[in-house]
Amino acid sequence: MRSGKLVIAQGGGPTAVINQSLVGAVLEARLFPRIERVYGAHHGVRGIVNEDFVDLSAESRADLEAIAATPSAALGSTRDKPDLDYCRNIFASLKAHRASWFLYIGGNDTANTVRIVSEESAKEGYDLRCFHLPKTIDNDLLENDHTPGFPSAARFVAQAFMGADLDNRALPGVYVGVVMGRDSGFLTAASAAARTGEGDGPHLIYLPERSFDGAKFLSEVKSVHDRRGRCVIAVSEGIRDTDGTPLSVRFAENVVKDAHGNIQLSGTGALADLLCDEIRSALGIKRVRGDTFGYLQRSFVGCTSDVDRREAREVGAFAVRQAIRGAGDGSVAIQRIGDYAVDYALVDLVKVGGKTRVMTDDFIAPAGSDVTPAFEKYLRPLLGSDLPQPARLRGGAIAKVLKR
Amino acid sequence: MRSGKLVIAQGGGPTAVINQSLVGAVLEARLFPRIERVYGAHHGVRGIVNEDFVDLSAESRADLEAIAATPSAALGSTRDKPDLDYCRNIFASLKAHRASWFLYIGGNDTANTVRIVSEESAKEGYDLRCFHLPKTIDNDLLENDHTPGFPSAARFVAQAFMGADLDNRALPGVYVGVVMGRDSGFLTAASAAARTGEGDGPHLIYLPERSFDGAKFLSEVKSVHDRRGRCVIAVSEGIRDTDGTPLSVRFAENVVKDAHGNIQLSGTGALADLLCDEIRSALGIKRVRGDTFGYLQRSFVGCTSDVDRREAREVGAFAVRQAIRGAGDGSVAIQRIGDYAVDYALVDLVKVGGKTRVMTDDFIAPAGSDVTPAFEKYLRPLLGSDLPQPARLRGGAIAKVLKR
Repeated sequence: MRSGKLVIAQGGGPTAVINQSLVGAVLEARLFPRIERVYGAHHGVRGIVNEDFVDLSAESRADLEAIAATPSAALGSTRDKPDLDYCRNIFASLKAHRASWFLYIGGNDTANTVRIVSEESAKEGYDLRCFHLPKTIDNDLLENDHTPGFPSAARFVAQAFMGADLDNRALPGVYVGVVMGRDSGFLTAASAAARTGEGDGPHLIYLPERSFDGAKFLSEVKSVHDRRGRCVIAVSEGIRDTDGTPLSVRFAENVVKDAHGNIQLSGTGALADLLCDEIRSALGIKRVRGDTFGYLQRSFVGCTSDVDRREAREVGAFAVRQAIRGAGDGSVAIQRIGDYAVDYALVDLVKVGGKTRVMTDDFIAPAGSDVTPAFEKYLRPLLGSDLPQPARLRGGAIAKVLKR
Repeated sequence: MRSGKLVIAQGGGPTAVINQSLVGAVLEARLFPRIERVYGAHHGVRGIVNEDFVDLSAESRADLEAIAATPSAALGSTRDKPDLDYCRNIFASLKAHRASWFLYIGGNDTANTVRIVSEESAKEGYDLRCFHLPKTIDNDLLENDHTPGFPSAARFVAQAFMGADLDNRALPGVYVGVVMGRDSGFLTAASAAARTGEGDGPHLIYLPERSFDGAKFLSEVKSVHDRRGRCVIAVSEGIRDTDGTPLSVRFAENVVKDAHGNIQLSGTGALADLLCDEIRSALGIKRVRGDTFGYLQRSFVGCTSDVDRREAREVGAFAVRQAIRGAGDGSVAIQRIGDYAVDYALVDLVKVGGKTRVMTDDFIAPAGSDVTPAFEKYLRPLLGSDLPQPARLRGGAIAKVLKR
């Protein structure tokens, strides 16, 4: 029977529950003496190549539980997108440390890295089992009903829009909230969960799955504002022109690119400011405010979905059980059963790696500026229990006396 | 003995607990039959002038409790800053509706309005008792140890920086978080509560109480980044040049002013973007990200301090008890007793109205880019119980094998 070390790492953008998956795997691994040690690699594959490992077997259960409840990647993360040579170095380090199992928590780029490492170890005839554990607030992994990290980020976005809408009711005007999501609109769409009653915002939701038409946008904002005296808008950072160019790129003075050659969309307020300026100048509305939720939405301490916490934990434990049972390499996927339970499956790495899931047409309203009830039904159980419910005064207007 | 109606209104920027004060006053008022009805004015003084009142006596206790737990102003708010004529119209409406008591929840502008209405009713010989109830996330009211709304916003800022710092540890670089506060740095300073261990950010804190020197800023960022490989920075939206001009104004292409002639600082990401661009170009650091916390920090649903909730509630109840006991007009103030309890007092409206409290020197580190332990001691009890505590792995490095 296979024995040896298990190496685990975290890649890509942190989430509020990525440490749940780490801790789920570590605690499960401790149940099996065949897993001699659990190594954690600092900063993902970069740490593997640099042999920057910590011994997770030495952590107390109490400390691991505290880490599970802490957002962001406790091991550190990386944006490195390894090529074949890089993957060979990963493999060489894993082999040198006599790893028998490699678990990598991350998004579709991470799944791709796991696939290449898996292929390299097969070529070399080294017996290494490789598993990808899903993680992304973007919810853009194929084969998954949803991905760990998304429900908690969605809950943050919903609670943020609840508050922004209440604020906008108190001091009416136009509010634009820009939400993360380069290609997939799921997280922006989650703003819809902020609506609990008639007239609640967001009144308009713009997703990267539909091309963004400035004139249509202004006309829709005007229409809502004329009717309600206010308008709350959720916009994905990834919205793009009819020719596919992201708006933030078209108007950014200095375009910053990351290591993947991707254009930086987050960590700048340019898109919100641009849209606000447009509304102000084209519609003559005075009170127009824009917020860019930025990094708050993915690592805020103290806003997670209990469903997300449980599932992320289970994803880690499931991967270890699969590993121990001798399953072949693969990517853990969450599958929905009814309304609402989940099951976990191991799917082929090529089905997930490097691929992007976007919102399907049944989740997007025909007008292209809202979601459908089907999406709201899909989203609701993910947000977890005890989602705050704003209340409002019932009314009971007093008759005027002066009637000026 | 005086009897009649009590009119209550909410003014200025909403907070997460302003409805606690509203509900505290309404529930307390119900205990006294002499208070025949409780009217709420929609959108502050504007609602009073327009006779836009609702009967709060008709609300159930259960609904009022739900409203107390809801952020933002349930009655709606206003940015109107009434002049003498406007105040006379307020007075005329209150008189027409036979109000005996007027309670107005808000900041220093609101206190000023209460003072003018109080003076007008005295001049007219009409027996109206006027009370100002403190509320502001800026914590900038004189006579108060702190103001309702600040502790909850401070908690949000602390939790946001905890998350941003964890994120920045995972993917190192420079992070700039811009926090509300036009003249007072209290809320930005609250970011210090995010630090729970060695090396935690924010590593630098810039307040409007100290003039902002761009060269010093860049040198301090470089110093932290050189030492730690990363840097988390809290910046007040109100930071200003040595000549007193807010930075956001100096560099804003289109300066937007509100009804008070104040320049719009919130609802735009310009300042964060400006600082990030400076860091990128002057220091050559690649990963530089900026977030502007914007409206999230004052109305986020689901992040309040229990201390703040209790105190805001009590401020409303205290005002009604003072009114019933026949106290003269005044502003409710929170006073600290020891470490930590509070008492409430009624102070002269002129001591609060139109005046701004800023952070004193003992709260600001000599270097001007951090707070002092005295401020941290002042802040800690306000944040409430169960402030999340991030955890981290203990280490236990594994010896290298390949040593490349």
